[in-house]
Amino acid sequence: MRTVTFGVACSLDGFIAREHHGVDWLHWSDDVSAIMKDFWKTIDTVVMGRKTYEVALGMGTGAYPGVRNYVFSRTLKDVGEGTELVREDAADFVRRLKEEPGKGICVMGGGELARSLFEGAVVDEVGVNIHPVLLGTGIPLFPPTSRQTDLELAECRTLDGGCVYALYRVKR
Amino acid sequence: MRTVTFGVACSLDGFIAREHHGVDWLHWSDDVSAIMKDFWKTIDTVVMGRKTYEVALGMGTGAYPGVRNYVFSRTLKDVGEGTELVREDAADFVRRLKEEPGKGICVMGGGELARSLFEGAVVDEVGVNIHPVLLGTGIPLFPPTSRQTDLELAECRTLDGGCVYALYRVKR
Repeated sequence: MRTVTFGVACSLDGFIAREHHGVDWLHWSDDVSAIMKDFWKTIDTVVMGRKTYEVALGMGTGAYPGVRNYVFSRTLKDVGEGTELVREDAADFVRRLKEEPGKGICVMGGGELARSLFEGAVVDEVGVNIHPVLLGTGIPLFPPTSRQTDLELAECRTLDGGCVYALYRVKR
Repeated sequence: MRTVTFGVACSLDGFIAREHHGVDWLHWSDDVSAIMKDFWKTIDTVVMGRKTYEVALGMGTGAYPGVRNYVFSRTLKDVGEGTELVREDAADFVRRLKEEPGKGICVMGGGELARSLFEGAVVDEVGVNIHPVLLGTGIPLFPPTSRQTDLELAECRTLDGGCVYALYRVKR
């Protein structure tokens, strides 16, 4: 079965962006590059929600190169080249995707899609890069979910800039 | 100047308790005992908000032994033996306390008091014990604050049970 990984950078108080989506506080480093590069080798599929797609679109085509890109939306009419639009329930779709042959699946962004996938219990790994800042307000790592997810710490280390990287496996 | 430390255990999604204050998910270990024991030697004062005081009261006298205990409340009429009631602004009071001779000051609990003290910029250290669980909902580490607090990572290590302990100094 393919592994579904939700990876995200957040502030110590659990925000993935400021109120108006600002991520100026994110610290990019060679450490982060190395983790991303290694991780990228293990996946062949990216799934994202509409909002994340629109942010990605603002920076280029919206499609990540070299992988299959799926965008979940009930309102979008069309998506750009290299991207496939999915209208069905995200958890159902990803659950089926996991059964197909292939490499890992990466959940991009946070918010609504992450909530659906955690509530549907299809996420296998959670990786966080906790930044040394209390933003005070912002967009939370997850909107409130009705389901508790128990985790097991797989790895934890300090990155450049005082960031803490922790990788967890979801307990079933 | 005395050091003001805010220390707390939280879930990976940034909650310090479930909706109805449940902390059944907290993992106690010899690691945590050792950190608490070392920390306790460095302080002589505990400050807490009304809600934290009432929880502490439910478990005994509400006063921590061997230290000076202050409870901030505008509604309480009286507090028990070993505890002093403070009606003035919490940040102003703690700012003055810091100027007096003495050992460290510990901020107990989270929520409203922590918010006031971060907004008043009187907190010097933040220690978190991040538990390997996504609670989904609960009482957040902090209610939304208008002020950003930049931190510097001082220490990070893994504790028993897959907990991640991180200590930060507040940047001025």
